[in-house]
Amino acid sequence: MGKAYLFAPGPTPIPPEVLLAMGRPIIHHRTPQFRRLFKEVREGLKYVFQTEQPVIVLASSGTGAMEAAVSNLFSPGDEAVVVRGGKFGERWGEICEAFGVRTVNIDVEWGKAVDPQDVERALKTHSRVKAVMWQASETSTGVMHPTKELGTLCQRYGALSVVDGITAIGVFDVPMDKWGLDVVVSGSQKAFMLPPGLAFIALSEKAWSSVERAKCPRYYFDLAKERSSQEKGDTAYTPAVSMIMGLKVSLELIREEGLPNVFARHAVLARAARESMVALGLELLAPESPSDAVTAVKVPPGVDGAAIVSTMRERYGITIAGGQSRLKGKIFRLSHMGYISKADMILAIGVVEVALRELGFEVELGRGVAKAQEVLFGS
Amino acid sequence: MGKAYLFAPGPTPIPPEVLLAMGRPIIHHRTPQFRRLFKEVREGLKYVFQTEQPVIVLASSGTGAMEAAVSNLFSPGDEAVVVRGGKFGERWGEICEAFGVRTVNIDVEWGKAVDPQDVERALKTHSRVKAVMWQASETSTGVMHPTKELGTLCQRYGALSVVDGITAIGVFDVPMDKWGLDVVVSGSQKAFMLPPGLAFIALSEKAWSSVERAKCPRYYFDLAKERSSQEKGDTAYTPAVSMIMGLKVSLELIREEGLPNVFARHAVLARAARESMVALGLELLAPESPSDAVTAVKVPPGVDGAAIVSTMRERYGITIAGGQSRLKGKIFRLSHMGYISKADMILAIGVVEVALRELGFEVELGRGVAKAQEVLFGS
Repeated sequence: MGKAYLFAPGPTPIPPEVLLAMGRPIIHHRTPQFRRLFKEVREGLKYVFQTEQPVIVLASSGTGAMEAAVSNLFSPGDEAVVVRGGKFGERWGEICEAFGVRTVNIDVEWGKAVDPQDVERALKTHSRVKAVMWQASETSTGVMHPTKELGTLCQRYGALSVVDGITAIGVFDVPMDKWGLDVVVSGSQKAFMLPPGLAFIALSEKAWSSVERAKCPRYYFDLAKERSSQEKGDTAYTPAVSMIMGLKVSLELIREEGLPNVFARHAVLARAARESMVALGLELLAPESPSDAVTAVKVPPGVDGAAIVSTMRERYGITIAGGQSRLKGKIFRLSHMGYISKADMILAIGVVEVALRELGFEVELGRGVAKAQEVLFGS
Repeated sequence: MGKAYLFAPGPTPIPPEVLLAMGRPIIHHRTPQFRRLFKEVREGLKYVFQTEQPVIVLASSGTGAMEAAVSNLFSPGDEAVVVRGGKFGERWGEICEAFGVRTVNIDVEWGKAVDPQDVERALKTHSRVKAVMWQASETSTGVMHPTKELGTLCQRYGALSVVDGITAIGVFDVPMDKWGLDVVVSGSQKAFMLPPGLAFIALSEKAWSSVERAKCPRYYFDLAKERSSQEKGDTAYTPAVSMIMGLKVSLELIREEGLPNVFARHAVLARAARESMVALGLELLAPESPSDAVTAVKVPPGVDGAAIVSTMRERYGITIAGGQSRLKGKIFRLSHMGYISKADMILAIGVVEVALRELGFEVELGRGVAKAQEVLFGS
């Protein structure tokens, strides 16, 4: 039997009711029926983003919305501070480079969160800086950067805060308006429990006024054009209709559970993952500031990192993620984001134990599971 | 009963087997399983594009692939001839403008095909022109432009041919390699019988060598990066996995029917649409060079154009399209692209008759249907 399980940081498992909604006959996008649906979806997105601003829906993966942030905020020659503590931090820098935006890079050891003092120093010494860009959750390392503190710093120094929330929004609390964040980006295949193919971006009023002056070229990702269309219930270009049909259902699921409960669930799942791995004698990559989206675990000495991922998938049907870029072979990443229950975590941790033992790492079977049971179901 | 039918030029109806494939549990994209699937899909796309070149798959709607063509081929200040005979011709021009590409516009009356002599004149007088851009099928007017002739002209004058085939590929014969076309773009929600959310683009060797020199900024739509990833079975950024799962099935359906049969079906459906409308006393917008994807019909005097579309939809569950931009209210568009059978056409034409009569246009009921029956099923 090929029963399969997803514990990778995107795509994440899709609830059957969402799959069914996407499998319904497609509707045309220039109809009252679509406009009604899209209106509900936009309201639901505001709830999850915790903002009064419109959340723009794009037909792209998350990187498209990251590009939209850059091309809609900047003119060539503008300067931005980029927090580079992983593959996705580097991506902010690469997009800036592609669009002629100069970057002040803050390189952070992969596995560590950025120190706000380093960002403050950069803001003090580079007075032309227009924005600071970081990941609320750096998916490649499993680190949570201090978004609230960085947002406050940006306000103090008059810079825009540009936050990649792709694996943060709907996972843990990133209240956009309350924290005064200027740009927040997310994507469908993470906490939104959908396939990849939709990206979301919300801008503060301050950010919207930067859009008017920004001269970087954009067309498909022209946010001002999208905003004026989407406020009328349309989109500038053909939307990914089926995905939006699914999104309506996944947003209902989130609202039903309630954001505080969703955050609490992710928090306890993440804690179970971390503590169980430590109980097995493994080391976490990011013990100090871990993201509740995904837990990065160092591959123990003598074990083949790639083999952990392939053994889990091929023998037990469980897809976890390996390391990316410079962390290739050095970590494995167990995600607990989206449609994941407490019982699912028991399953995943139990199979990690079995796979590790199979690959020659000495494991007391059940030890990690016991720790997880305690965290998840304990008094 | 709210049974609904789609006769709009995208999204088009989705075969149940494709919906079911997309509704299956999602798989992770960095797995051998996805790579196998994606390899099959890329082979199928080559078949439909009639090319030996790789067909790049993007997570976006068709406009994203149009932007990719512009940003990957040109540097700011480059010059391109743009055939503007409808909303999508204008879109080529808008994208060029956004990226600082200067355009030599050939404005064509909406409803007419471009005269190749006008393009040749432009190529003669503007020696710096790097490319000519047009629609193989201009969806907004139902016109087929003379792609083969324009391709030959481009070769003669050393310009790149850049073809929007969004409602042409898989509808009628546009053999990319045989006709020496340099860039061909398409999208999932047309003849590919999928929801919107995937775009496709193929480039000739000559076009690929232009990509190396092109300086317009791009990141999400960086085709060289996508090519090198996709040749290894990956994508540069997270692909729209579920859509690709559906695409595998729709490509199998196309291969099973066989491209020549697919083209012949579209041709006879389109002829039935055109001749039945004329039999009802209606006038076609594009009688001289019609596209087999969609038939644009002039709204008869005294009838409310918007009401035709809304009556069809609200009373009879049939979604057709109205006119766009300057043709708003002046035409209605009946599409016969994708998953549409001969029997479907009888249904659509029969309901058009009923709706027109309801709106005060004198119709001999059954007259259009009879003509369609003759075309579709006659000796």
